[in-house]
Amino acid sequence: MGDTKKEFYERCLEIHDLQEAQQLLDWDQQVVMPRKGAEQRGNQQAALAGVLHAKIADPALGELITSLAAKKDLGPDLAADVREAKRARDRAVKIPAALVSEKAKACSLAQVAWEEAKGKNDFRSFKPHLVKIIDLTRRTAEAIGTETLYDALLDEFEPGMTEAALKTVFSDLRDRLVALFEKIQGGRDKPNQDALKRTYSAPGQEAFGRRIAADMGYDFDAGRLDRSAHPFTSGTFWDVRITTRYDEHFLSASLFGVFHETGHALYEQGLDPKRYRDPAGGSCSLGIHESQSRFWENLIGRSRPFWWHYFPHLKQAFPGILDGIALEDFYRAINVCQPSLIRVEADEVTYNLHIILRFELESALISGKLDAGELPGAWNEKMLSFLGIEPPSDQTGVLQDIHWSAGLIGYFPTYALGNLYAAQFMQTLRKDVPDLDKRLSEGKLSVVKDWLNQKIHRHGRLYLPGELCQTVTGKALAADASMTYLTEKFGEVYGF
Amino acid sequence: MGDTKKEFYERCLEIHDLQEAQQLLDWDQQVVMPRKGAEQRGNQQAALAGVLHAKIADPALGELITSLAAKKDLGPDLAADVREAKRARDRAVKIPAALVSEKAKACSLAQVAWEEAKGKNDFRSFKPHLVKIIDLTRRTAEAIGTETLYDALLDEFEPGMTEAALKTVFSDLRDRLVALFEKIQGGRDKPNQDALKRTYSAPGQEAFGRRIAADMGYDFDAGRLDRSAHPFTSGTFWDVRITTRYDEHFLSASLFGVFHETGHALYEQGLDPKRYRDPAGGSCSLGIHESQSRFWENLIGRSRPFWWHYFPHLKQAFPGILDGIALEDFYRAINVCQPSLIRVEADEVTYNLHIILRFELESALISGKLDAGELPGAWNEKMLSFLGIEPPSDQTGVLQDIHWSAGLIGYFPTYALGNLYAAQFMQTLRKDVPDLDKRLSEGKLSVVKDWLNQKIHRHGRLYLPGELCQTVTGKALAADASMTYLTEKFGEVYGF
Repeated sequence: MGDTKKEFYERCLEIHDLQEAQQLLDWDQQVVMPRKGAEQRGNQQAALAGVLHAKIADPALGELITSLAAKKDLGPDLAADVREAKRARDRAVKIPAALVSEKAKACSLAQVAWEEAKGKNDFRSFKPHLVKIIDLTRRTAEAIGTETLYDALLDEFEPGMTEAALKTVFSDLRDRLVALFEKIQGGRDKPNQDALKRTYSAPGQEAFGRRIAADMGYDFDAGRLDRSAHPFTSGTFWDVRITTRYDEHFLSASLFGVFHETGHALYEQGLDPKRYRDPAGGSCSLGIHESQSRFWENLIGRSRPFWWHYFPHLKQAFPGILDGIALEDFYRAINVCQPSLIRVEADEVTYNLHIILRFELESALISGKLDAGELPGAWNEKMLSFLGIEPPSDQTGVLQDIHWSAGLIGYFPTYALGNLYAAQFMQTLRKDVPDLDKRLSEGKLSVVKDWLNQKIHRHGRLYLPGELCQTVTGKALAADASMTYLTEKFGEVYGF
Repeated sequence: MGDTKKEFYERCLEIHDLQEAQQLLDWDQQVVMPRKGAEQRGNQQAALAGVLHAKIADPALGELITSLAAKKDLGPDLAADVREAKRARDRAVKIPAALVSEKAKACSLAQVAWEEAKGKNDFRSFKPHLVKIIDLTRRTAEAIGTETLYDALLDEFEPGMTEAALKTVFSDLRDRLVALFEKIQGGRDKPNQDALKRTYSAPGQEAFGRRIAADMGYDFDAGRLDRSAHPFTSGTFWDVRITTRYDEHFLSASLFGVFHETGHALYEQGLDPKRYRDPAGGSCSLGIHESQSRFWENLIGRSRPFWWHYFPHLKQAFPGILDGIALEDFYRAINVCQPSLIRVEADEVTYNLHIILRFELESALISGKLDAGELPGAWNEKMLSFLGIEPPSDQTGVLQDIHWSAGLIGYFPTYALGNLYAAQFMQTLRKDVPDLDKRLSEGKLSVVKDWLNQKIHRHGRLYLPGELCQTVTGKALAADASMTYLTEKFGEVYGF
């Protein structure tokens, strides 16, 4: 087995390293690339995508996988590596190389077009790019050949998940959230966000964000914090970069953005150092990844115990700005629940409704029930129906997210799954660390990071997402933990 | 011929685009990568280098080249593309892929080690990396199999140049420079640099540098200016990035550094837009590239007419700092000629002596006449012999340049060749534009950029360096133009 195993890993590591290069080119495009570089970057990404496709689809790799998969007693790590290499390869061999290259290039151009269209509030200039991406995505899904086209897309981001299962989960979740949202809107005590809308200088926000990230355990010698139009996390293990954006008249955008991206980054920095380049050494799924960011952003970052310790530091970081605001006012301000236009700024209750909206639209786009040209109207209709508000412009509506321009269709649902996993993980953490709130109130964040490192990060993809959830929490994924948490928290804040 | 030609270009463009990705990873490493990312970046670069080597060495490409080369009437562009693709491929097939990957990885690690060693003034910690790089470079040269090992290295950077030819040119150049340098040291009027050593804030230097670069014609929408330990230019056409470093107590470091790097950048931005990805569409050679940077840095940037226009602007950019300094004082300050430790800060006369020193040392290292351990001593001896001074530390001696840590051996000579080409180009420009000084004194820099665009940049690699020099100037390369220029200029400044 020695030689087979050696060659298997050599090929897998080469693929991993080239994928890292691909990711770096994307980070560069979003953070530092000059405006005119888009077409050339498209050429570079297309070339790299072509190379990677050929390497993954190489029949010699297929033979190595088949040969190893036929053996017994591989041990858990090698067995998981073979399984994950096989999953990636099976997917790749079904998609023609030319389609992969074409999609990479189209997405590179579309992202620049999206940024310009968003700036100018001009959906029409973005539409042809979106039409192209939908077409290329449908052709990709057709090549994979799952029960529905959308299933093929979902499986890339959340292995094992299906469109039908999501429809069931999401319609149930929607009903329960809408019921809760109605209670909140009729609540006795209405907090307000005015304190967050004072003037917070961007350098002050950056300094405080860096401090929070460092206290959470983010290693800045293996990372960076930059600005970009759409915040994201990029890279793995020794080089994990996060971005944010600053709104000087709304503290939450960057503050909770940094919690969120640092949560993602801690996952990547927390992988097994000996395994992170291996096929099953990386993160488990996008849903599990999102559980890490939402865990920090909401379950820690919007909790009272956290701010018991950090609120005085926040006041110091912005001298005078928070005068007259008590901790309790601040806690209530960061837990306002209301209909809102922008997903990344939505509260914990309405956030999943934003996701369900996107899921329903992209599912309709891919199945052909909706044309790209009808998208702004359909978006606005659903906003009205779910949240009772209508975007005054596409800038704050259908153009707000980068995902579709990046070819990421089937990706949004993982955000809602992340919320459900996170709530379930928190129930277990509270069992394992009964004095969690006390520790948080003393600013001891390492207890959280260490627990996530040990229970989730180190495993990489040893388990599939469903198995990991079962292993960590002793239960299958369900909406119950999340609904219990939200109902208790917002019942108390809104007084019902 | 249609299909052969089409496949030839498809393969060449893919190779070019992957090389751009390679260059971007290098830019990132030098400018923004977190400290701990070096090993992972080494893995990425090794993987990319391996892919590129396989693509270039692919026998199918060899057959396409052979088939096209056998045809007549290819036209000048295709003929040059076939010639350049053949040159690159012939070189690559001789070097084993494993050696290419190993060297890429070793260089990635060595660059980080060099930066640390330079910071700590600790040659010993860098030495094992240098030993490794010399060994890998010798093995590379052996595989190519030229008359001397060093010839194989030279040919990569300056096609057609040999170690023997350089020895002849450089010993002649050295004699003439040493004679001129003696005259200067005995000159009647000694300018001084005190005005340049006042306090110039880094943000002020950056703002003025950006202005100069923009006025030279650098397109910031297709480029960036950042900071790095060793200034450099990276990328091509739509994405050409320059870096600099700021010394708040020495204006020249960044000021002339920006002229220099912008000179390089204008070459890349000035290539033929339809040809820049083709094998003969890029820059002609490193010597010609350096002629562009030195042209702007010295022949324009250290000229009186340029400062007739810009000196008042410089005074405005640093209010109060240049009080009491007349234009003539400033002109003399930026044309001080003296023995100095740091190559990139050396004046026009002694600069080439720094290069000849490095050429002699690396030639000795590669031929095996000198061990890496003896390098600091040999460096210091030559400094004493050429320039009469000895570095007080390796930081300001053998550790000052990034090149060897990046595996760039055989590269330094192109800097001196650049000076010789630049002086010869200037003689021709003066013939073509008799009122050049008047135009410069009016701040009309576009006359220079347009001439260089038309005469040099647009040709790419259509001509070999020697042919380009002959075509543009009507003469073969010689030291005469440079020696005439230096003797006249410094005779006037120093009064002899």
